[in-house]
Amino acid sequence: MSSLRARAVSGIPELHAGDDLAALIVAATGPEQPSDDQVVAIAHTAVSKVEGAIRMLAEVQPSEQALQLAAAAADAGVDHATDACAIQVALDESSEVLRAERGVLICRTRHGFVCANAGVDASNTGREGSLVLLPRDPDASARRIRARIGDLTGATPAVLISDSFGRAWRHGQLDVCIGLAGMQPLDDWRGRTDASGMLLRATWLAVADAAAAAADLARAKDSREPVVLIDGLQRFVCDGDGPGAAALLRPTDEDLFR
Amino acid sequence: MSSLRARAVSGIPELHAGDDLAALIVAATGPEQPSDDQVVAIAHTAVSKVEGAIRMLAEVQPSEQALQLAAAAADAGVDHATDACAIQVALDESSEVLRAERGVLICRTRHGFVCANAGVDASNTGREGSLVLLPRDPDASARRIRARIGDLTGATPAVLISDSFGRAWRHGQLDVCIGLAGMQPLDDWRGRTDASGMLLRATWLAVADAAAAAADLARAKDSREPVVLIDGLQRFVCDGDGPGAAALLRPTDEDLFR
Repeated sequence: MSSLRARAVSGIPELHAGDDLAALIVAATGPEQPSDDQVVAIAHTAVSKVEGAIRMLAEVQPSEQALQLAAAAADAGVDHATDACAIQVALDESSEVLRAERGVLICRTRHGFVCANAGVDASNTGREGSLVLLPRDPDASARRIRARIGDLTGATPAVLISDSFGRAWRHGQLDVCIGLAGMQPLDDWRGRTDASGMLLRATWLAVADAAAAAADLARAKDSREPVVLIDGLQRFVCDGDGPGAAALLRPTDEDLFR
Repeated sequence: MSSLRARAVSGIPELHAGDDLAALIVAATGPEQPSDDQVVAIAHTAVSKVEGAIRMLAEVQPSEQALQLAAAAADAGVDHATDACAIQVALDESSEVLRAERGVLICRTRHGFVCANAGVDASNTGREGSLVLLPRDPDASARRIRARIGDLTGATPAVLISDSFGRAWRHGQLDVCIGLAGMQPLDDWRGRTDASGMLLRATWLAVADAAAAAADLARAKDSREPVVLIDGLQRFVCDGDGPGAAALLRPTDEDLFR
C-alpha cells in the first residue's frame, strides 16, 4: 500500500530579511530532521521575507498606467480599495499584463509564471503597508536552501517553494510549485504502458504541483506554518538539483488550454 | 502539528459494469474501514467502468467532422495514429470543441469541464478497443457511492471522484475533482484575516482539487489502485452531500485566466 504523508512544521518564527531559513527549519523540526528522501515544501512568503523581497507601499511612486488601472477598477465598482501603488508593484514584477479587469491583473511574471497581480501578496506579510513579492529566482532559492540544510544536517531533502495561483476554467486557487531543487517536477509516462499493456499516451504528471497542493492541505492558511515535510515521494526525489520549477512552464505556442 | 495522510487501497479487482464499487472498497479496506471524517478519493475510470460508461471503438461510426479532424492530425504529422472513431467518441461527449490541434481536442464536456478529448481515456480501460468515458453525472455518482458506503458500514465518508486534466500555462497534468459528496469543494477565506489581522482578500482555495492531486500522488499510475483514503481533511468534510464538484466550474464570463 503506497502512501503520502504531509506534516506542517510548528515553531517557525515570524521571518525577517537575512534570517537563515534553513537553520530555522532544522531547529523547528527538532529530532525529526528532514531526510534525504523527504520533500520540504515552503510557502514562498517565507522565502521572500528572508530574501528581503518586500516593497513598502509608502515608497512606491505609481506610474500613469498604474493610476489608470486603479481608476478603471474604481469606475467598475470594485468593492475593495485598489491601490495604485500596489498595482505599480505588480507591474514592476511583470513582463506582460495579460488582462486587467475588476481590480485584478493577470500577469506573466519576470520568471514566466502566469498569476494574479504577479504573485504580489498583501496578506501574511507580517508588516503593515508592505507587500511580499515572489522570490527573484525561486529555483535558485530552493537550491540554496537545500544546500544549506545539507551543510547543517548532512541530509539533502528536496526543497519545493509554492504559491497559490488561480486557474483557467475552474474556481479557487491551488498551490503550485514555483521553485524546486532535488525533485523531478514532471513524471513522464508517455510511451509507457498501463497495467494491461495499453500505451499511456498523454500521461505526463505535474508531480511537483501535486506535492505543492498536498502540502497546502496540511497547513491552515491563517497560521504560521509555512513549512511542510512530505514523505512518500522518494520516487521523484533525485540526487542532483534537477531542472527546477522552470521546467513546468508551458511555452505559449504549445498551449492549447487557454 | 497539522497533517495530511493519503493511502492507496490495495486489492480492488478489475472492474466491470454493474459491480458494486462501494462494497468492493469496503471489502478491500478490511478492518480499517472508511470513517466519517475521511475522504475516499476514486479515480474516475473505476466509477465509469462500474456504471458502464464505456464505448467500443468497433461500434462507432465516425462523422464527417471526426474524419476531417483525424485527417488534419495526420497531415500535421502527429506521430501517433489518431483514430476518427476515438475522435467521434470525444465529440459525442462534448458540448463545445474549444481547440483541435496536433491530434488533441480541447473540449468542454457536457458537464462543463474543460479537458483534452472530453476526458475520454484509451488507457486503463481493461478491455482492448474500448474507451472509458467520464461518468454521466459524477456528483450523483459520488453521492450514490457515499450513501452505499453508509448502508454497508454506518459511516459516511466524503467521496471524491477525480480525473487528470491538463492546465493552461503549465506543463503536465494534475488530478482535479470532477465529482464530490460530503466535502466542501472550496474553502473561502475572502473577508477573513491572516495571523497578523490583514484581510485575506483573494484567498479562496480549491481544496477538493488539492485533495484530488494529493490522492494521485499516493498511487502509482500503472497499478490497480483507483481508491485512496485521505485523513486530515475533517475541517472540509460536511454532514450533507454539499454542492458537489459542479461548484468548481468557473463561468466563462468570469474567467480572466484563459
